Amino acid sequence: MEHSDTLARLEATIGQRLQGDPTASYVAKLNAKGVGKIAQKVGEEATETVIAALSGDHDELVGEAADLIFHLMVLLGAKGVPLAQVLAELQRREGTSGIVEKAGRSN
Amino acid sequence: MEHSDTLARLEATIGQRLQGDPTASYVAKLNAKGVGKIAQKVGEEATETVIAALSGDHDELVGEAADLIFHLMVLLGAKGVPLAQVLAELQRREGTSGIVEKAGRSN
Amino acid sequence: MEHSDTLARLEATIGQRLQGDPTASYVAKLNAKGVGKIAQKVGEEATETVIAALSGDHDELVGEAADLIFHLMVLLGAKGVPLAQVLAELQRREGTSGIVEKAGRSN
Amino acid sequence: MEHSDTLARLEATIGQRLQGDPTASYVAKLNAKGVGKIAQKVGEEATETVIAALSGDHDELVGEAADLIFHLMVLLGAKGVPLAQVLAELQRREGTSGIVEKAGRSN
Repeated sequence: MEHSDTLARLEATIGQRLQGDPTASYVAKLNAKGVGKIAQKVGEEATETVIAALSGDHDELVGEAADLIFHLMVLLGAKGVPLAQVLAELQRREGTSGIVEKAGRSN
Repeated sequence: MEHSDTLARLEATIGQRLQGDPTASYVAKLNAKGVGKIAQKVGEEATETVIAALSGDHDELVGEAADLIFHLMVLLGAKGVPLAQVLAELQRREGTSGIVEKAGRSN
Repeated sequence: MEHSDTLARLEATIGQRLQGDPTASYVAKLNAKGVGKIAQKVGEEATETVIAALSGDHDELVGEAADLIFHLMVLLGAKGVPLAQVLAELQRREGTSGIVEKAGRSN
Repeated sequence: MEHSDTLARLEATIGQRLQGDPTASYVAKLNAKGVGKIAQKVGEEATETVIAALSGDHDELVGEAADLIFHLMVLLGAKGVPLAQVLAELQRREGTSGIVEKAGRSN
């Protein structure tokens, strides 16, 4: 419920910001630079998450993981992909075998 | 609620698998290779998400975003970081200014 | 001279392989999958280089850096960018100020 | 020869800068922040290279590839890995089979 509230509210807020004034909002400013720039942030935050996991402390990993999820949600919002579809895909995979699996993948 | 169910259940399942038999589960097998290998998967899935956003279709982006969230959750689980802490951090930032912001960041 | 020989020869060999039989060569096989797949390998090898630098030993970093340069050269070859242009750009920047700098960059 | 000159000179200059005054040089400043920060730049530049290859023009790819090689060389320098060792590893692989291969790799 907590999770749902946070992510659903975040998605709604990001959706509003994406249409907003680039001078007034980080999300609108990022979106004004194009999808490539948003995607770049996803890549950067993933790298920072990797580094925090390997050489940072607990709080750094929390912060970087939050940054990664945030920018992933901005990217999904900018591309018109509802988070619900991504979660449904996660659920579908889990349901397939009754366990969390990533079967049939070549790498 | 849907979101909550999916992520909370996924987190619980990953928690169980992390302790499981490496020959019976993808998560256990990945975990047996160490945090570096899990972190590597997070980096790889982020790259694939970037590529799907720039040159893939809607479904590819859904699939890659699901892969990214999944492996991020495995990494958090392996490092003992509850997803609730990451979501609380997202909520805290949102609450700070009433808007979704990533203020005071240099890059 | 050593450096020149190695990279120039590697570039020539990659150029030949890119046009080759996908069943007979790793480079041709990768190229047949498209630029997105080659770019993905560059992202993956960069992540592995990051991890090797933070938690691997000397030889692992040597190996991952070699993988990264190799796949970067495949990407450049597939996109028709001569390595000489990239090196000329490195030289140009160095020459600008007499020192190795990345000045005037916002991030 | 051109290649050799550029990279050998760049490596020497980076080696000097790594020991230099963090207020006077980008390389020294980056190094003062630690290997994690240099590694992060390698990850970021790799992401930018991926994006330039997929959605940028020729010159953007040249620029991003130069940034990637530059930061990889800073990382190698900070870790005490001579570029010659990386090039020797590239040469060794090429020599193994007479062709450029990445054989026997699982992913």
